[in-house]
Amino acid sequence: MSEAVSRLSPQAIAARLVDGDRAALGRAITLAESRHPDRRAEADAILSAVLPKTGGAVRVGITGVPGVGKSTLIDQLGMNLIAAGHRIAVLAVDPSSGRSGGSILGDKTRMAALSMSDAAFIRPSPTAGTLGGVARRTRETMLLTEAAGFDVIIVETVGVGQSETAVAGMVDVFVVMVLPGGGDELQGIKKGVIELADVLAINKADGDQAAAARRTAGDYQGAVNLLSGHDGARAPVLTLSGLENRGLDELWDAITTQVDAGRVSGAFDTRRADQAVDWMEDLLQVTLYERLLGTQPARTARKIARDRVRAGAQTPAEAVADILAAAGPSGS
Amino acid sequence: MSEAVSRLSPQAIAARLVDGDRAALGRAITLAESRHPDRRAEADAILSAVLPKTGGAVRVGITGVPGVGKSTLIDQLGMNLIAAGHRIAVLAVDPSSGRSGGSILGDKTRMAALSMSDAAFIRPSPTAGTLGGVARRTRETMLLTEAAGFDVIIVETVGVGQSETAVAGMVDVFVVMVLPGGGDELQGIKKGVIELADVLAINKADGDQAAAARRTAGDYQGAVNLLSGHDGARAPVLTLSGLENRGLDELWDAITTQVDAGRVSGAFDTRRADQAVDWMEDLLQVTLYERLLGTQPARTARKIARDRVRAGAQTPAEAVADILAAAGPSGS
Repeated sequence: MSEAVSRLSPQAIAARLVDGDRAALGRAITLAESRHPDRRAEADAILSAVLPKTGGAVRVGITGVPGVGKSTLIDQLGMNLIAAGHRIAVLAVDPSSGRSGGSILGDKTRMAALSMSDAAFIRPSPTAGTLGGVARRTRETMLLTEAAGFDVIIVETVGVGQSETAVAGMVDVFVVMVLPGGGDELQGIKKGVIELADVLAINKADGDQAAAARRTAGDYQGAVNLLSGHDGARAPVLTLSGLENRGLDELWDAITTQVDAGRVSGAFDTRRADQAVDWMEDLLQVTLYERLLGTQPARTARKIARDRVRAGAQTPAEAVADILAAAGPSGS
Repeated sequence: MSEAVSRLSPQAIAARLVDGDRAALGRAITLAESRHPDRRAEADAILSAVLPKTGGAVRVGITGVPGVGKSTLIDQLGMNLIAAGHRIAVLAVDPSSGRSGGSILGDKTRMAALSMSDAAFIRPSPTAGTLGGVARRTRETMLLTEAAGFDVIIVETVGVGQSETAVAGMVDVFVVMVLPGGGDELQGIKKGVIELADVLAINKADGDQAAAARRTAGDYQGAVNLLSGHDGARAPVLTLSGLENRGLDELWDAITTQVDAGRVSGAFDTRRADQAVDWMEDLLQVTLYERLLGTQPARTARKIARDRVRAGAQTPAEAVADILAAAGPSGS
């Protein structure tokens, strides 16, 4: 079937995808993940064709350090939502996934129940390239899964580079998972990540750790209340257990409460619109850099300029002039 | 004298500036703040000439909401430092300063003692343009004042746009001033600003507010400890009174302790080098955008594309293609 789909036109793939054909969805994602210009053009055509069918899902980002229990939580939350009639797509942003070692986000074997369900679609992180490239492809995959009828999109990430910021910038509600006990330093949470959270989930609030989880929740709620800022909503802090399926309804309530409140206030639409414009500007910037640095002399000049500026041997203005000169008319 | 300086070559201005000539320094800053290409070229030549004489100062950023007491603190701290043999430059980043209303950062009348001292140099925020433009000119002014022999540079800002982030990105130590009582929300502090702080200063710890200031310091220290992250140092939280000149020695100790520790660990040099490279990349990006959007059709296409993407009527990829097509060969 996959082979048959691969011979279809972008328009035909788009039509099948909107009808919920998984092979067409898989093909469209493969095209979107490609770096080949012809494949990219096909992916762009599919995305344009399905654009009116996108935007209908609730987009949820989930982050947390390795070992916090992301896969177990997503597996269980996903099954709960499927039981309630939802269709779930699980995507991932992990710029390190192409390298050796480490767990692979979105790996189906890590979500045993969800991966067996027809109402779920699980896609590992695109493997190639920079965070910007990985995030772009995940954004496009998100639109494609929405067009295919999935109404809850979960995007998971770990703390690689600025991946949390990238995911927070593509979802409606960003959930940060925390372990019981200790603060960010002990847990290995990067500075600034808590600040991105729309919801904080203290996981593993089970067995011996239930009391510690409540204390941790109190500590984080205090800090969030103090530092939430005059223009920011205070993120609710919940305790839950993905393993024991406790507190997951409350988590989903917190997510939908924020979505519903945002729909009433207009914040939901504003956030989505801002995200789309940011994405466009990111893409424009990447394109300009690719053109500028399309030649080896330009890339070499940039590297030399960076080293000289880093060493304090050249002003930034001189360095930029050198790079532009090396790029020549084609890059200018 | 100023008129005489204006007829000098960039090299002559640079030579006088390095000798501590205030008229030459003023002229160099005026050139750096200009948008005229010829003036800019002269400024670039001066900056290149004085580059080896820069980098010797301690660079301190100070932010806080209006009314927190920035001017009083800087005036007093500056006088203390001058008494200890330092030479102080006070600069500002305020992208709103060109508009009507509001206080003007770096206004000499707001720092009565410091503005009378020969060992101080006070320069208000450049008034024109975007945050990026204002920040660029302040960075350049910082280098020029360093070359002129000022060994403590204080850059103040209020919470306009992302101005705190811009200033945190150009200094060695970033101080966030906070009022006694209440959290960020009550005080009008933007979400994420506390996270930028290397030192938190609870000001107005005097009279009736001394006890409240201590409580506020305890609350913020708790939050900072919890959220400092595994890769971030815990910012010290101090109580002080700019008005009564109490706690200012401790503030300066906290600043120099961080600088000294960073010089030993290498973090100081790394931060400066990273900042210089970031500045170069910012400048490269601004230059690419200026070239792309140098024609009216390109600017119009970008505006239309943003509106269409914002409305969900066009994919980002389509929008970027439209902008590049409108820019034509000159912008591509």
